[in-house]
Amino acid sequence: MRDSYLDRLIDLSLDEDLGSAGDVTSAALIPEDADGRAELWAKEVMVLSGLRAFARTFERVDPRVSVEFELTDGDRTLAEQRVARLEGPMRSLLIGERTALNVVQRLSGIATATARAVFVINTVRGSKLKILDTRKTPPGMRGLAKEAVRHGGGSNHRVGLFDGVLIKDNHIAAVGSVGEALRRAKANAPRLVKIEIEVTTTRQLEEAIAEGAHIVMLDNMTDAQVAEAVKVARGRVELEVSGGVTEDRLKSLAGLGVDYVSMGSLTHSARAVDLSLEILHATPKRKKR
Amino acid sequence: MRDSYLDRLIDLSLDEDLGSAGDVTSAALIPEDADGRAELWAKEVMVLSGLRAFARTFERVDPRVSVEFELTDGDRTLAEQRVARLEGPMRSLLIGERTALNVVQRLSGIATATARAVFVINTVRGSKLKILDTRKTPPGMRGLAKEAVRHGGGSNHRVGLFDGVLIKDNHIAAVGSVGEALRRAKANAPRLVKIEIEVTTTRQLEEAIAEGAHIVMLDNMTDAQVAEAVKVARGRVELEVSGGVTEDRLKSLAGLGVDYVSMGSLTHSARAVDLSLEILHATPKRKKR
Amino acid sequence: MRDSYLDRLIDLSLDEDLGSAGDVTSAALIPEDADGRAELWAKEVMVLSGLRAFARTFERVDPRVSVEFELTDGDRTLAEQRVARLEGPMRSLLIGERTALNVVQRLSGIATATARAVFVINTVRGSKLKILDTRKTPPGMRGLAKEAVRHGGGSNHRVGLFDGVLIKDNHIAAVGSVGEALRRAKANAPRLVKIEIEVTTTRQLEEAIAEGAHIVMLDNMTDAQVAEAVKVARGRVELEVSGGVTEDRLKSLAGLGVDYVSMGSLTHSARAVDLSLEILHATPKRKKR
Amino acid sequence: MRDSYLDRLIDLSLDEDLGSAGDVTSAALIPEDADGRAELWAKEVMVLSGLRAFARTFERVDPRVSVEFELTDGDRTLAEQRVARLEGPMRSLLIGERTALNVVQRLSGIATATARAVFVINTVRGSKLKILDTRKTPPGMRGLAKEAVRHGGGSNHRVGLFDGVLIKDNHIAAVGSVGEALRRAKANAPRLVKIEIEVTTTRQLEEAIAEGAHIVMLDNMTDAQVAEAVKVARGRVELEVSGGVTEDRLKSLAGLGVDYVSMGSLTHSARAVDLSLEILHATPKRKKR
Amino acid sequence: MRDSYLDRLIDLSLDEDLGSAGDVTSAALIPEDADGRAELWAKEVMVLSGLRAFARTFERVDPRVSVEFELTDGDRTLAEQRVARLEGPMRSLLIGERTALNVVQRLSGIATATARAVFVINTVRGSKLKILDTRKTPPGMRGLAKEAVRHGGGSNHRVGLFDGVLIKDNHIAAVGSVGEALRRAKANAPRLVKIEIEVTTTRQLEEAIAEGAHIVMLDNMTDAQVAEAVKVARGRVELEVSGGVTEDRLKSLAGLGVDYVSMGSLTHSARAVDLSLEILHATPKRKKR
Amino acid sequence: MRDSYLDRLIDLSLDEDLGSAGDVTSAALIPEDADGRAELWAKEVMVLSGLRAFARTFERVDPRVSVEFELTDGDRTLAEQRVARLEGPMRSLLIGERTALNVVQRLSGIATATARAVFVINTVRGSKLKILDTRKTPPGMRGLAKEAVRHGGGSNHRVGLFDGVLIKDNHIAAVGSVGEALRRAKANAPRLVKIEIEVTTTRQLEEAIAEGAHIVMLDNMTDAQVAEAVKVARGRVELEVSGGVTEDRLKSLAGLGVDYVSMGSLTHSARAVDLSLEILHATPKRKKR
Repeated sequence: MRDSYLDRLIDLSLDEDLGSAGDVTSAALIPEDADGRAELWAKEVMVLSGLRAFARTFERVDPRVSVEFELTDGDRTLAEQRVARLEGPMRSLLIGERTALNVVQRLSGIATATARAVFVINTVRGSKLKILDTRKTPPGMRGLAKEAVRHGGGSNHRVGLFDGVLIKDNHIAAVGSVGEALRRAKANAPRLVKIEIEVTTTRQLEEAIAEGAHIVMLDNMTDAQVAEAVKVARGRVELEVSGGVTEDRLKSLAGLGVDYVSMGSLTHSARAVDLSLEILHATPKRKKR
Repeated sequence: MRDSYLDRLIDLSLDEDLGSAGDVTSAALIPEDADGRAELWAKEVMVLSGLRAFARTFERVDPRVSVEFELTDGDRTLAEQRVARLEGPMRSLLIGERTALNVVQRLSGIATATARAVFVINTVRGSKLKILDTRKTPPGMRGLAKEAVRHGGGSNHRVGLFDGVLIKDNHIAAVGSVGEALRRAKANAPRLVKIEIEVTTTRQLEEAIAEGAHIVMLDNMTDAQVAEAVKVARGRVELEVSGGVTEDRLKSLAGLGVDYVSMGSLTHSARAVDLSLEILHATPKRKKR
Repeated sequence: MRDSYLDRLIDLSLDEDLGSAGDVTSAALIPEDADGRAELWAKEVMVLSGLRAFARTFERVDPRVSVEFELTDGDRTLAEQRVARLEGPMRSLLIGERTALNVVQRLSGIATATARAVFVINTVRGSKLKILDTRKTPPGMRGLAKEAVRHGGGSNHRVGLFDGVLIKDNHIAAVGSVGEALRRAKANAPRLVKIEIEVTTTRQLEEAIAEGAHIVMLDNMTDAQVAEAVKVARGRVELEVSGGVTEDRLKSLAGLGVDYVSMGSLTHSARAVDLSLEILHATPKRKKR
Repeated sequence: MRDSYLDRLIDLSLDEDLGSAGDVTSAALIPEDADGRAELWAKEVMVLSGLRAFARTFERVDPRVSVEFELTDGDRTLAEQRVARLEGPMRSLLIGERTALNVVQRLSGIATATARAVFVINTVRGSKLKILDTRKTPPGMRGLAKEAVRHGGGSNHRVGLFDGVLIKDNHIAAVGSVGEALRRAKANAPRLVKIEIEVTTTRQLEEAIAEGAHIVMLDNMTDAQVAEAVKVARGRVELEVSGGVTEDRLKSLAGLGVDYVSMGSLTHSARAVDLSLEILHATPKRKKR
Repeated sequence: MRDSYLDRLIDLSLDEDLGSAGDVTSAALIPEDADGRAELWAKEVMVLSGLRAFARTFERVDPRVSVEFELTDGDRTLAEQRVARLEGPMRSLLIGERTALNVVQRLSGIATATARAVFVINTVRGSKLKILDTRKTPPGMRGLAKEAVRHGGGSNHRVGLFDGVLIKDNHIAAVGSVGEALRRAKANAPRLVKIEIEVTTTRQLEEAIAEGAHIVMLDNMTDAQVAEAVKVARGRVELEVSGGVTEDRLKSLAGLGVDYVSMGSLTHSARAVDLSLEILHATPKRKKR
Repeated sequence: MRDSYLDRLIDLSLDEDLGSAGDVTSAALIPEDADGRAELWAKEVMVLSGLRAFARTFERVDPRVSVEFELTDGDRTLAEQRVARLEGPMRSLLIGERTALNVVQRLSGIATATARAVFVINTVRGSKLKILDTRKTPPGMRGLAKEAVRHGGGSNHRVGLFDGVLIKDNHIAAVGSVGEALRRAKANAPRLVKIEIEVTTTRQLEEAIAEGAHIVMLDNMTDAQVAEAVKVARGRVELEVSGGVTEDRLKSLAGLGVDYVSMGSLTHSARAVDLSLEILHATPKRKKR
């Protein structure tokens, strides 16, 4: 299915790797008509994401490359497990290798980091806490990174500036107060998006609830402050904890009764996980088409 | 100066954040003709990179936004230090904020990780070891990531498949031997690029030197194996260590006499560092132009 | 401020008008260095919209053309009123004329049609009925058409498929029932978008309210059916009337107590209003730059 | 066959509808692997146009969607008639629906308005009057709109500024006189395009004929003035009537002996006609490919 | 003035020269903040063309580069003459040099070749023969090449497939006869383009005249055959000679009374003329902006 | 295999030929559903190049056109020889004809000119002189032109500014001396590219060798000067002769012992060779798909 953002990203990354001179190593060493086979392997335990982007990379390089997956996005791999088999012109396999790996390693890293966070929360019996992502995604990978968070078991905050009103400290400062900000948002926001507002005190929280915010973001609060906020809110509004939340803090947060915790680190600092492409010995010369 | 790759990346990331509906929060809250000021602050010690991309983001959002830097790429910041002052339409400041931060946080993270690696090596007196990057860069950010490595004091390996011959295990397997691979490369490679080859044994190293490789990459060798290889090479060829090298191992490597060590983690897994945009109270309504 | 959709539309429309051969008439008749002045005039009473697109068209044709507006989007014109003054190279004025007019005539037509609908409703004392647009907009003009509706005093339904869940008959049929559709939406929809559902009976309306729909669209109901639905809903949910609503029916709808009426005709069939560009006698040859 | 303008328009309209977040309703409700069938129905009597664009929209959304037409561009439909059958992934059918309808409804509206005008003229026995369009087309739809006019039985005026010299009042004013304008055009215009000139008096008409214009446009003349012009011209030149011509006036014009009448309203204000996409109950899960 | 084709060509040629790694020589040698001056010199007698493209190249590289011309397109240079002065960042001057020269050398070559052909014809007293170009232009340079022909004193045949009907042997073969081809063209061609047809015999010429062709192309005829055709035509139609015409044959053709001769060699095989960019010693470091 | 530069060039050249109005001749004469066959013929002895671009042109016009080659790039043709057979919709064959020929004629011209130069050198027994191209390629055709040179038996100099350091007179002047230029290059250039420097005296040559240049370009030297330089170099560095070298001078150069000669004329002034597309009589109407 069409994804114009994905195609722009893949084309950009292939262009930056190939330029007008192309792969000079393969051109010098590999006959133009040599075919080959390859396999994608996970080299550590991970949650997969980005397989669609991986396949699309090879499709853009050369439509003659076929990719068959044995696992799917969201699957958890073994420490050493085959993920896909590829077949096609050897040069095209070599050209697409790095670009395709760069995207799948990064996205599976995001999915894996998310899964780890979700796992921590699930150890707290009865917790309803949900992990949210942020807009702190790798440039050009917004949609892909949001998918990766879902593959890891997390939920998505808004995708962009367009699909939700999120009133932050800067907005509040600009218009004067939480109340005024919410009144303007109610009057002017699109009919079908909800309104979330960031607060730093329980007084602001009260004001937000009074003015009908749909979700309130508790910004940079300690666990004690969060607990206090939950008490104040009495279930009248959804609560999201935000601000430098690390994996370590998740466990305590999970017991406090807030609805969401958003973690920028999932998308801006997740370690790339290890996947590699093993090129198998070349097959004999391919038949002329 | 023109950078078509940078513009494609920035436009893509702005498009994915704005869509056809734009910033619905600012549209609902901030008057169209409100001007504002903002400041970019480093919130931890870091080596800066990506300031050009940061400025270009705002330029693409709205040419009326001005950005004045007080520091420059490659500078090391204090734990809390102002980096730039911005001025322009308030809505445009808010629209560009996240996209601009996403790129500068990531690139400064790469520069900072590189600087840390370089620092470790510099503690070893007399070491000539140079840090190289790889092609494991965030998709669409190849050129920017390579610059970030230089800002951190590292050196660049080839930028893409086009500006250097790098013969890897897959190529050697495909043509049969180190010697055959090098002979084909010498015969067919472009006149002005050098030839590097990956080896896993000292026997292959000998063969590579005999066939005139310019650089030899020692792949996944232990320190002992690297030391042996240095002895075998006797300065006849430049040597690069590669393969899962972590910061911890740099110190021992620095004393072994190899020329380069390449580290994928610098660009694929560096943590994003903390920079934030502080919006100052809005200035009075701007004059009509 | 950046609007990549606007630029793509304007570039496309200029390209289709100019091709690689350009304006052969002006090239044959008008000296390359002749400057000129022109005025944009409204030739009938209308609500203006699209002035930004009008100006941007000339900016794309030739940055040397200056446009100064005397009125602004949302203003109501006299039957004959000057809207803007232009100055610049004569050939560029002639080249941009038709393309710029095509967009402003169409958008002002939408704004004017909307204003007429709003006016009808306002004649009904105490009506809170709001006019909504739909996604039935001219291809490539989504954002512009939505703006035009606002300029005419209307409100916007969702901008695209991305900023609101709207469950239609097709979705309900696909999943089995109103209830099941809403349950899936609640479970899977993004956190910050609301959920609207289309119903054709009061039974479905009850089900929708029970399952927590935020807005219910009453599809193709008669006034009597709408009145019945309002009674059933008892203010528990916002109600939108939809389906072939004409200007004539607005008055009766305005008294029924529903919240919204959406009208596709505003954007798919509004008549283009009459604006024309009067080229004034050319100024003397311009100075060399 | 390649049509880069069509693809740019369709991609633009899909992008504005989908953004980076896509169709959140279908994503929440419809399983990714559900297939479906749909039918395109005309809901009123119309002349069809834009079927190629309709099919191309789905092809861009997802190449797995197949579209089979039972009617073709230029066909007149019944008040209720099936036009096409579609089959493919259910989500893709839902995603393409609105964008595809927007284009075919608008273009069929243009074809239908043209057919009505042609019909009026055909009621006048012996009339040779031909209906021409103008460049007042929806932005980005120039070629499609021109095709729609042909499908409705009309003829095309020039497509853009590039394929014909049309000297208007502004040009005449700029160079001084009808004669001078024509002399310049004859000297400088491309060899293979004809020259048309707009006149407002019979004196100018005489001058135009004397200087060898190929076609003369009678601008904003009353029927009496047109009749006089026909007498003056004595068949020495083709005559086109232009300027706010409505359907009502066509009948009287048809008897006056002019060759062409151009009508901007055909393309700038034609009502969109009613076509709808009926999604049929989903087929069972599709086989893996 | 906007020229989207020019920009696409220049961007493409800069991209293919710079890739994602840029100008590695200047980056290694020239300080980033060094400014410089340069001059464009004609190194042989030529007719200039492409100066707009030359300037636009530098503008795309870096808007800080200024270009001031001392001559203009269509001017004939001395064997050694300064054409322009440039000033700006030294790196940008070096980056744009080759790409800008490639376009101006090629276009001035076309203009010069055309001027030489026009000169030959002008030596024949009383000849009205006009030089036409063809569509055999360098890919991506259609508009520029057509301009260059005009700068050299030639005239343009149609610019593309869109601005004139030219019926060739293939079309005639496909429809059966000259007469049938012309009848179809008359019935179906756009109103404002003329119809030219290619003939190989005087019998076909007669048929073409009888059916109302506007111009007849005499394909691959000897001088004697051309003379015969002129006699047959008796001024009833414009005549164009085409087919492998070299400069040598122009003199005899000029006396035969045909109207046009078209020469593919002007645009497909003209030698690039010699222009060079002399970089002057760098100016002192530029002031900070 | 993907070649984004090729696609941008072909799309640009098709766009400039078709515009929004398309091929008006074929539209007027050829039924939309007529199929045809065609053959590509070489009309003189040549070395072929550009067949991939030829085929891609038709693929972009209409994927239904099939192209089967009987020869391949690099093959030498007879004076009259069939190169390919095409089949597909007649209109699409006619639309692609000129654009496809323009590219293959030009590229085969470059290959043929190169082959002629190589032939001259091969007549000198024992010469190791290699023909190099330059960056003086047709705008937008860098990669294609470089391939054409290889098809003709030549070698490629660097492809762009990115894959080799080439220090020219301007760089030397800017930094002060050959030595300083080389020292900077050694310190700052990418690890995997070689360094070439242009010299005009043997003194500079000595300096270049001393500072470790990989290749030295002898700029605008006479044969005597070149011979002297060879003596000075004593095989310590590769030597390239450059500067206005014509075919005539190749023979004497071939005996002097230099390694390379670069010839700009191969790509900037090669004559287009003669290939033509013969459209065969149309096949009967094609079957409906």
